[in-house]
Amino acid sequence: MKEYEVYELLKKYGIQTPEYAIFEINQPLYFHTFPAVLKIASDKVVHKSDVGGVRVGIDSPEELEAARSEVMDNLQRHGIFLDMHDRFIVEEQLSGEEFYIGGIYDPIFAEVLLFGKGGTLIEIEKDVCYIDTEANEEEILRSFKTTKISRIFPSFRGRQYRIEDVVDVVQKFQKLFVNEDIAEFDVNPLLYTERGFVAVDARLKRGKKSAPKRRARNHDLFANEAVAIFGATDKKEKVGYAIAKNALQSDAHVYFVNPHVESLFGQKVYKDIDELPPIDTAVIAIPARFVIELVEKLALRGVKNIVIISAGFKESGNKEAEEQLSALAKKYDLNIVGPNCLGIYNSDKDLNLTFAKSAIRPGDIGLVSQSGAVLAALIDKAAAHGIGFSHILSMGNMADFDFADAIETLAKKESCRFINIYAEGLRDGKSFLQAIRKADKPVAVYKAGKTQEAKKAAFSHTGNISGDYEMLIGLAHAAGAVIKRDIDELIFAAKFANFDKVLIITNAGGPGTILTDIVVEHGKKMYELSDEEMARLDAVLPPTWSHNNPVDIIGDATAERYHAALQILHRPNLLTFVLVTPQFMTDSLAIAKVVAQYENTVPIFFGEESFAQAFAFCKEKNILCFNDLENVANIL
Amino acid sequence: MKEYEVYELLKKYGIQTPEYAIFEINQPLYFHTFPAVLKIASDKVVHKSDVGGVRVGIDSPEELEAARSEVMDNLQRHGIFLDMHDRFIVEEQLSGEEFYIGGIYDPIFAEVLLFGKGGTLIEIEKDVCYIDTEANEEEILRSFKTTKISRIFPSFRGRQYRIEDVVDVVQKFQKLFVNEDIAEFDVNPLLYTERGFVAVDARLKRGKKSAPKRRARNHDLFANEAVAIFGATDKKEKVGYAIAKNALQSDAHVYFVNPHVESLFGQKVYKDIDELPPIDTAVIAIPARFVIELVEKLALRGVKNIVIISAGFKESGNKEAEEQLSALAKKYDLNIVGPNCLGIYNSDKDLNLTFAKSAIRPGDIGLVSQSGAVLAALIDKAAAHGIGFSHILSMGNMADFDFADAIETLAKKESCRFINIYAEGLRDGKSFLQAIRKADKPVAVYKAGKTQEAKKAAFSHTGNISGDYEMLIGLAHAAGAVIKRDIDELIFAAKFANFDKVLIITNAGGPGTILTDIVVEHGKKMYELSDEEMARLDAVLPPTWSHNNPVDIIGDATAERYHAALQILHRPNLLTFVLVTPQFMTDSLAIAKVVAQYENTVPIFFGEESFAQAFAFCKEKNILCFNDLENVANIL
Repeated sequence: MKEYEVYELLKKYGIQTPEYAIFEINQPLYFHTFPAVLKIASDKVVHKSDVGGVRVGIDSPEELEAARSEVMDNLQRHGIFLDMHDRFIVEEQLSGEEFYIGGIYDPIFAEVLLFGKGGTLIEIEKDVCYIDTEANEEEILRSFKTTKISRIFPSFRGRQYRIEDVVDVVQKFQKLFVNEDIAEFDVNPLLYTERGFVAVDARLKRGKKSAPKRRARNHDLFANEAVAIFGATDKKEKVGYAIAKNALQSDAHVYFVNPHVESLFGQKVYKDIDELPPIDTAVIAIPARFVIELVEKLALRGVKNIVIISAGFKESGNKEAEEQLSALAKKYDLNIVGPNCLGIYNSDKDLNLTFAKSAIRPGDIGLVSQSGAVLAALIDKAAAHGIGFSHILSMGNMADFDFADAIETLAKKESCRFINIYAEGLRDGKSFLQAIRKADKPVAVYKAGKTQEAKKAAFSHTGNISGDYEMLIGLAHAAGAVIKRDIDELIFAAKFANFDKVLIITNAGGPGTILTDIVVEHGKKMYELSDEEMARLDAVLPPTWSHNNPVDIIGDATAERYHAALQILHRPNLLTFVLVTPQFMTDSLAIAKVVAQYENTVPIFFGEESFAQAFAFCKEKNILCFNDLENVANIL
Repeated sequence: MKEYEVYELLKKYGIQTPEYAIFEINQPLYFHTFPAVLKIASDKVVHKSDVGGVRVGIDSPEELEAARSEVMDNLQRHGIFLDMHDRFIVEEQLSGEEFYIGGIYDPIFAEVLLFGKGGTLIEIEKDVCYIDTEANEEEILRSFKTTKISRIFPSFRGRQYRIEDVVDVVQKFQKLFVNEDIAEFDVNPLLYTERGFVAVDARLKRGKKSAPKRRARNHDLFANEAVAIFGATDKKEKVGYAIAKNALQSDAHVYFVNPHVESLFGQKVYKDIDELPPIDTAVIAIPARFVIELVEKLALRGVKNIVIISAGFKESGNKEAEEQLSALAKKYDLNIVGPNCLGIYNSDKDLNLTFAKSAIRPGDIGLVSQSGAVLAALIDKAAAHGIGFSHILSMGNMADFDFADAIETLAKKESCRFINIYAEGLRDGKSFLQAIRKADKPVAVYKAGKTQEAKKAAFSHTGNISGDYEMLIGLAHAAGAVIKRDIDELIFAAKFANFDKVLIITNAGGPGTILTDIVVEHGKKMYELSDEEMARLDAVLPPTWSHNNPVDIIGDATAERYHAALQILHRPNLLTFVLVTPQFMTDSLAIAKVVAQYENTVPIFFGEESFAQAFAFCKEKNILCFNDLENVANIL
């Protein structure tokens, strides 16, 4: 499309453009609003400025004619010869801060806007944010605030910048992009003038778009009253054994199915599906080639929840079988989890349908992982630190049940207080964002595959394109998710999520300083000591104590001194770190025993060789502790 | 200074300015180079643009007169009334990319330049770098490359940008700033035009500067043939006991001094300094009030190296005693380390003069720490991981011996291959940078005190101002130091510093992807498998292996399969990670035993509960291993 055609389209959506006039190549130029700009409008020219196709600062009709000759000369020098299809545009020259807005059609997120600082340096400055076309006002602002240019709002160097104008112009472009057949567009600059945003230079490409249609789900994946495990076995090296064993102690009815086994763990094993009592949930751990037939049989018997552990589908090149699963799910309105997954866990039924090695304890984290191995590792760590889960969902290949389904399902569960997601690549970004928006509990996202090398690794591992890291992170953040940069945070961060303020009691100033940096950089506040607390501390601490938080109780601090400080300062709503460095007289075990008496108090034994006993004590008593400073970020 | 006075000064140093003319307030304006700019030059106006004190795009003498009236009206509206001291400047209007150069006089680093992107948004974009006035060409470029705007060099959107022009203009401003009595200056914009950089808008403040004079050192701190420990004692709770014990097994002669003790560890204890045989090094661990007198006595006996462990100086408010120490060091040409420090370690003499709890083993890291507690923690961790040191230097209050001295001393030591520094606040930035520049081995710097809260903590702990984090980091990086963001890197990073390429062998794709991100983000390269290696791996791995590095050998990988992959891929110059997740059939102990056979191969057992045996094995065999992915960054 030519620029003036774009202008007309923009006006239809209430987007301002400069006052302008269009002329054929040899037509005289009549224009009377100065200063003015002359621009070429030709399909043969993409970056007008780069070939001398723009002249600014034109102050009179004479200068305008001179500018025309100049532009034609410039173009000829670049080998561009104009013809009857080309036009000149003359428009009023506006001044103001340069912004940028553009639209792209992403394979995962469909229509996405980019908005931020404009100008010729945009590619190197990259001061733009991503905005979903379905983003509401709050979301638009949350996104915009991640740019540097947003800091000129509401005023900068004596000029006013109205944030309402940002919301207004973005919303107009959202409508334009969704309603029209536009494949992509670029407005640079989108000028912030006295009369608000004006699209000064616009480029637009027509094209049809089609977004994936999402299926409504009518059954709760975690309504698990009666479960059958297909492939339950007494062979200990098989996953069917592990799942059966993990599932044994449950409030749900659990049946085992295997034609080759008589009984398992003292329970009858059914020969096949036809013998079974009614079930609502099936777990399938049989060879891939038998899976499709079984799923269809289950569907015909009205089973709605099917968890496919079996591997041998898309990840092994068997795309067809995977598409059949997907089709069956649609046809029979099923929830199919997997294939190629670790299983699910449901604390509401005390039901562990995974083959994870370590025991899973009940808690309030709903953990969703696209990688079974990452899930296994996190479960293993959680077990060592006494961290519990409300639900666990191993997504596997996501033939059917996807991240949006997982978030929507967990959002409805009272026992789940945190929805924590490990993602490699999404399939349907729009519904993912919708689910985050609707969830009324915190959603945390860790995304793997940031660098090109890692994307290649992810591709060779799942066969999925992992998508653009910055876009996913930007959009998910705007939609309301918390972004995690360390995988361990998916299990550790929930515990102290509601604690805003931090207290540090330390026997050394330097490490106290480092920890303060880490605390503040992760968005927590340092608690301020009251005068009364100061006075009470003066009475029990050596005179050189820091008189500040971090409360440095000096290198020769004993367990008793730590105790005295905790007695004065401990508050149930304060996240307290007891930081211990290996000083000559430090009795770390005694300090660990003191800490064990206080809730929400986390010991950090910064060292290793000297602290073996303290670490062993914490492990035995199930007390979360650290041996370095940077890892403390995991719980902030 | 008025702007045209600044112009004249700039020209003296070969810095280009626009063609310009100066007029008194009511004088007619004669100027014939158009387009032109009219600016007010008045001490009453600081930010000219903000009060309408600048008019651009003037194309004729008539417009020029009109612009003058306009500017006077604007100023009046802002309550600014011109008088006979004020001037108008008319100058040619230039166009080009807007840069910025400024100079500040920092209490730590003295004259420092800021250089980068200019324009009105400079405060919010902050795309500038710090450049020392003593920085050479290489350093100027290293600094400049940290800015985004540097990416337009050597060409951007069809325009050429000559990097030589950057070096040239920065060097001219370095000279100007050092040679003239300038307290601070600002050039914004420094325009990059067809004829190179032109200072278009310049502001400058006169003022005297005085940099700290540095003292030349004539004695090697680590020439330790005969050492006396003052305050050596048999009381186990005292640091004098710990130092004496640590110092016992040394190639140097070690004497103990204490009037109240007869013998210690079967060795004679001297009553006082007069009884002692000749010594070159003294360690002082006696009460602060006796220290000054002892130091003077030692100096008179020709002792050059004095390590003061004793606390009770500046950190307790005793500034005067600390200044006395500093004066004595100057007067007698001494190396005084401390006071209030943990001591020093010298592997060349097998000499441990610290009161650290854990044994220190010899190695190639020279570790310098401003915090005794951080040092103690790092020594403790190093002990647990078999990491060794060539030298250790606890800086304490730095009454005399400072970071520059430490770097220069270690740079000369053959046994030291890495100089690793933990700093809170410097005293003399210029000499710190000079020492980094001159060192012909890697210098790594970790700086604590990034956030305001941490700076406050550091101040209440040392009484030192910790200085600007970004400035120190920027200048140290430019001078050639490696910046560390995780404190543990100061001991872990040295081991694999010379390994460029990384191989990952894993039993899970997801964690392999995450680790790839971490490896690449820390500047290492992923090794590319050769066709021959691929073919050999095909013969021993399941067909679904990843055919890529990370080499995913699939979830059911046994120790034998890890072994087979290592036999094919292990190279002595390749840093190899063996990544293990807790899969159902994983025998982590057997895998640990396989890894133990290969050099430069680091196991990562991603999990915890399942891996207790593997961790215990690694600990026993002194094999560095990890239980999470993010911490692996410590050795990259």
